[in-house]
Amino acid sequence: MAALAETARLIRSPYHDAVVAAGVTDWSIYNRTLLPLSFGDLQAEYRRLTEGVALWDVSCQRQVQIEGRDAEVCVQYLTARDLSKMRVGQGRYVAMCDHDGRLLNDPVLLKLSDGRFWFSIADSDMLLWCRAIAAERGFDVQITDPNVGPLAVQGPKAADVIADVFGESTRDIKFFGFEEVVHDGIKLVLCRSGWSHQGGFELFLESAHRGVDLWNLVAEAGEPYGIGPGGPNHVERVEAGLLAWGGDTTPDSNPFEAGMARYVDVDCEAEYIGKAALMRVVEEGPARQFVGLMVEGEYTEPWPLPQRAVVRRGSEDVGTMSALVRSPKLDRTIGLAQITTPVVEASERVEIESPSGPLCADIVALPFV
Amino acid sequence: MAALAETARLIRSPYHDAVVAAGVTDWSIYNRTLLPLSFGDLQAEYRRLTEGVALWDVSCQRQVQIEGRDAEVCVQYLTARDLSKMRVGQGRYVAMCDHDGRLLNDPVLLKLSDGRFWFSIADSDMLLWCRAIAAERGFDVQITDPNVGPLAVQGPKAADVIADVFGESTRDIKFFGFEEVVHDGIKLVLCRSGWSHQGGFELFLESAHRGVDLWNLVAEAGEPYGIGPGGPNHVERVEAGLLAWGGDTTPDSNPFEAGMARYVDVDCEAEYIGKAALMRVVEEGPARQFVGLMVEGEYTEPWPLPQRAVVRRGSEDVGTMSALVRSPKLDRTIGLAQITTPVVEASERVEIESPSGPLCADIVALPFV
Repeated sequence: MAALAETARLIRSPYHDAVVAAGVTDWSIYNRTLLPLSFGDLQAEYRRLTEGVALWDVSCQRQVQIEGRDAEVCVQYLTARDLSKMRVGQGRYVAMCDHDGRLLNDPVLLKLSDGRFWFSIADSDMLLWCRAIAAERGFDVQITDPNVGPLAVQGPKAADVIADVFGESTRDIKFFGFEEVVHDGIKLVLCRSGWSHQGGFELFLESAHRGVDLWNLVAEAGEPYGIGPGGPNHVERVEAGLLAWGGDTTPDSNPFEAGMARYVDVDCEAEYIGKAALMRVVEEGPARQFVGLMVEGEYTEPWPLPQRAVVRRGSEDVGTMSALVRSPKLDRTIGLAQITTPVVEASERVEIESPSGPLCADIVALPFV
Repeated sequence: MAALAETARLIRSPYHDAVVAAGVTDWSIYNRTLLPLSFGDLQAEYRRLTEGVALWDVSCQRQVQIEGRDAEVCVQYLTARDLSKMRVGQGRYVAMCDHDGRLLNDPVLLKLSDGRFWFSIADSDMLLWCRAIAAERGFDVQITDPNVGPLAVQGPKAADVIADVFGESTRDIKFFGFEEVVHDGIKLVLCRSGWSHQGGFELFLESAHRGVDLWNLVAEAGEPYGIGPGGPNHVERVEAGLLAWGGDTTPDSNPFEAGMARYVDVDCEAEYIGKAALMRVVEEGPARQFVGLMVEGEYTEPWPLPQRAVVRRGSEDVGTMSALVRSPKLDRTIGLAQITTPVVEASERVEIESPSGPLCADIVALPFV
């Protein structure tokens, strides 16, 4: 691929200079922010994540902060999940849908106080969406982008690194739990979360001008554990069946077609956008399902698919494949796809029009590992 | 800069294969779509645009189509400009604002019929915004992304190329006027528009699968005129003072702070989002203005600034500079900035903290040429 040109239109990460110094080789852009994808050694980056500890600049996960008298009502109206039992200090993986039940984003929602929430968003501009809804509904809230860019520390040794920096008590933080911390003058929210199945933390940095300091602090503490830079890891996330919104989903997907059924509540008192449409999907069953593909044969291309590939059964289009990797854990070629429900339920074998030629695959449930 | 990794999350341009074959060297991402910025020779690309004819893949200008019984009412409510006299076959440069008068986007609006419009958008997801507003207001409209990616033919010889392909009558199309065309089975909207001051057309391709054919058709017809590939040209657009939304504007800018005063109507019967806030700005005067900077000294960096630079007067921050180029037309170093109104009105000299060190500049009105 050709180079990426950096311009003033893009949001600069608080960790930018550290990432460049660490030797980033491949970027994406996500929420108008540079997202480092690799530092030149994909195998080592996978190994660090799955056996040691990895450091990722995921400041592209922008926060949408909702604050004010109606914050609770507003956040519930925006979220297709019953939040009535959510407590301060908790995070929740949630679906945000439009009035037709289309999945707009799959953020992690953090409840900072009774009147203050963050949606930590995937790659669609929920600031726009939330402001439109709140203004038209007349909610008494302030909706802002507080410029909080997370730094992810992921892997089986992540908890050791975090304990060495922030204290042993951090080991007691539960999954999706968080604490507000000030360390060396750096204000951040320390959350046990991250886009991998290897465990770890995301450091939601509030002192944006201290990004390089925070990066260096964690990088130095991680040295004994073999920490190194990386980015959200394509191979590991496929093994774990983690959803990449916008990549694995089409613009008209509902959350049930994105593997999010267990995070959507339709039998609750809460009123939210898209509820009626989602109830219809539950009644009728989703048209497609998000599944794994166990693919025959070898596959060596280390990078993500540049676009979705058509999945067929005989002459019929039955879905699209959005990811294809060689899994080191399984020593198999695996993929992710959205496939029509009848084909999934019949567990039928499918054919894929991959960029490297036709492939055969069996449909399996997620996650792979 | 490091490489850009292409992934399934990004929208693929209908011209993608032609752009790669033409030797693209530098990308940006705009509306989640790959935007080719250069093919390796910025000087030749500027020369073709200003003296000949240039071909740009600007399919990242996604369309938001608003169609249905309430289309006219809905489009007006979304637009800070009086559209009561707009006719079918016309385009208009418009401001879309939020309820606080912040500029969300500066699209060209095309009226395809009384019940069907396209917003041809800058880099913010107005599909989300428009759907939120329409659903909450109960407008009877369908709002979609029709997958129409424009191809821009820009430069003093663009009209010759377009006349050779689509007929001499295309010379009579007025600025922002358009015609629906089917040529060689390729359906498109031919509009006299484009993000340069050199004149030209944008071909809004409706037959998305024919992108490479359309590119090749225009490229071949343009050969006698020296056509060549390029991208929205940073140097020419600075000379012309053309706004780059998100680059030249901050997230809280109103249209009066973005040089869009003449496109905003507050003394009209039309009701639209942000009107009350914009009336207050008119009464009180905008806090900042979008201006040119005539900068002292040489400047040789050919690429856009990677981020905005602070503008000072003495020890006081008075704005931000978003672009800095060497203008071939003026043989001067020039810039674009948002500066506080009192400083602009006093025409005071300012200092800039540029990446290459401190600079001095005089404030001038736009455009430069």
